[in-house]
Amino acid sequence: MTEEQLRSLANSIRKPDGAAAARARERQLHLTKPPGSLGMLEDISVRIAAMTGETGPDLSRRTLVVAAADHGVAVEGVSAYPQEVTVQMVRNFLSGGAAINVFSQHGSIDVIVVDAGVAADVGVPPAPGWVVHKIGPGTRNIRKEQAMTRKQAVEAAELGIETTRAAISAGAGLIGTGDMGIANTTSAAAVAAVLTGRSPTEIAGRGTGIPESRLAHKIAVIEDSIALHAPDPADGLAVLAALGGFEIGCLAGVIIAAAAQRVPVVVDGFISTAAALVAARIAPRASSFMIAGHLSAESGHAVMLDELGLEPLLRLGMRLGEGTGAALAMHLVEAASLLVARMATFEQAGVAGAEPESR
Amino acid sequence: MTEEQLRSLANSIRKPDGAAAARARERQLHLTKPPGSLGMLEDISVRIAAMTGETGPDLSRRTLVVAAADHGVAVEGVSAYPQEVTVQMVRNFLSGGAAINVFSQHGSIDVIVVDAGVAADVGVPPAPGWVVHKIGPGTRNIRKEQAMTRKQAVEAAELGIETTRAAISAGAGLIGTGDMGIANTTSAAAVAAVLTGRSPTEIAGRGTGIPESRLAHKIAVIEDSIALHAPDPADGLAVLAALGGFEIGCLAGVIIAAAAQRVPVVVDGFISTAAALVAARIAPRASSFMIAGHLSAESGHAVMLDELGLEPLLRLGMRLGEGTGAALAMHLVEAASLLVARMATFEQAGVAGAEPESR
Repeated sequence: MTEEQLRSLANSIRKPDGAAAARARERQLHLTKPPGSLGMLEDISVRIAAMTGETGPDLSRRTLVVAAADHGVAVEGVSAYPQEVTVQMVRNFLSGGAAINVFSQHGSIDVIVVDAGVAADVGVPPAPGWVVHKIGPGTRNIRKEQAMTRKQAVEAAELGIETTRAAISAGAGLIGTGDMGIANTTSAAAVAAVLTGRSPTEIAGRGTGIPESRLAHKIAVIEDSIALHAPDPADGLAVLAALGGFEIGCLAGVIIAAAAQRVPVVVDGFISTAAALVAARIAPRASSFMIAGHLSAESGHAVMLDELGLEPLLRLGMRLGEGTGAALAMHLVEAASLLVARMATFEQAGVAGAEPESR
Repeated sequence: MTEEQLRSLANSIRKPDGAAAARARERQLHLTKPPGSLGMLEDISVRIAAMTGETGPDLSRRTLVVAAADHGVAVEGVSAYPQEVTVQMVRNFLSGGAAINVFSQHGSIDVIVVDAGVAADVGVPPAPGWVVHKIGPGTRNIRKEQAMTRKQAVEAAELGIETTRAAISAGAGLIGTGDMGIANTTSAAAVAAVLTGRSPTEIAGRGTGIPESRLAHKIAVIEDSIALHAPDPADGLAVLAALGGFEIGCLAGVIIAAAAQRVPVVVDGFISTAAALVAARIAPRASSFMIAGHLSAESGHAVMLDELGLEPLLRLGMRLGEGTGAALAMHLVEAASLLVARMATFEQAGVAGAEPESR
């Protein structure tokens, strides 16, 4: 895929379907419940109608793309875990022992794990649900060099696009995002700081759980990296290439592809939302197709969601990544769509509406 | 059941199992994720271990009890809907058209609807999942009389106890609560105001959606009712009898029975939490077995949860009742238990732990 082709795909994303949204909103008023009494689920059902053009579409087939990659900036000592944990956790995903495996099995979600650039060889041959396409052996250290070339940034997005197109062709009506990559909260915070115009102090958090003392170092690394490259905030690919990660680029592609096919995409936490910011910068209309799965405990996530105009469904103090927040939220998203599809109206059920004098 | 028998059951509730909680907490530290990174789900998994005595018990069989009854105080014009909506909605539950039907089917939850005192005849013969045991044809108008006799209050609790015992005998490992009853936010707010020691203004909200002007009237009705009966806040049955509802008493029984059998119980919103306050007053150890499903949009719910020391799982701005918040939260509760049961440890998965210097 060329950059030109990526831009063309981004430009092909349609506006949400206002007429379908109005139909869903109208239908909510006739369902056997006080108007507005299902809160955010009603809003989500209306947004899903706007995205898909359908009132209460079938979201029973769901796919979550977990992109993994390594980060050169890990050598700066910004994570609580050694870099080899990335490949070890990918193997854990493939053998079904990670949190995302438990949640996705529980929620009937198909998981596709993508090796977008894990430094070590995972040693498992590609199979259904397991895509190996290393853009590179981890990114370069952003404190010293650009994370990747602009060509690699496009390639990372393309990887997510192709993976998502295949999942949608196979029947997925709802897409989710997830990530794995030691040191990727550093990269994601750098990307998010540039794209939101906020300072790294406002965005960066303790990631996997570094002590307060190391957080100051992590913020200094992010500040140095941004100062070194000073990418144009209006150019999503430039920010991704300078400061991002292969999994972040891949997830931006996942989001753009879902939006282009009018499939709702449930965005996970801190890393996935940095990818969503990149996607929205490349393809501004993509944000209409995003649903924020949860609010991460990682400080700065709320700022990122604000920038995208998204309100998170879950607030459970989670900060694991892997798509765990998205997987749990997908259950709520399907429930919202089912309401519109299956609930009886006042007329159908023979239930009286509100008394006129109470309105 | 005599009052004495009810007290004896309440006193039989055991303290949470601290050793099992410690085992679950210890296991969380070995699972392949940074410690604490699953936030509230980790806390819930520890609490479930404390309740059940098991680390990661099987919660795949779930039953939600939806208790319905009418309220004499409806004649005071405190609801946006006419009283016949109670019986109409019960019929809607039985034919599968209500929000709780959609959510429980989606979440593989068995629903038991209980007519604890709907004013009108539902006209559907008892069947599996449908219990008819009218304590009375709705309560009396609490602004003028006690809602029910003390004997009826015990009978309402007994109804919930028997229903829940049967569900647990049939295999349910997780119980949920739900309600239906026009005007029951008035009754629940009155009960909650007395049991929390707060003023009705702090507790009562707009229920099904009455306008601001009628909220003042609703609060006056609650104030009048509390002043008329002045029940002893230390006596849960007295408060229930003076101001409660048959469904509220039934749900208090559901909670006491679940706690007595060490089965976690997911409490729904405003009405269910008023029942939980009654349960906790009759059986103080019952609160250790409660999980707050969600924070209702109904003002005052947060105060009630605070009193019980519970933090809600979901915050979706819902205010429907029927058990809709509990049903959605049950998915998260099962996910929390599955984490402990199924996730691999660092050792099992060959994943490195955090670097010592990062701790």
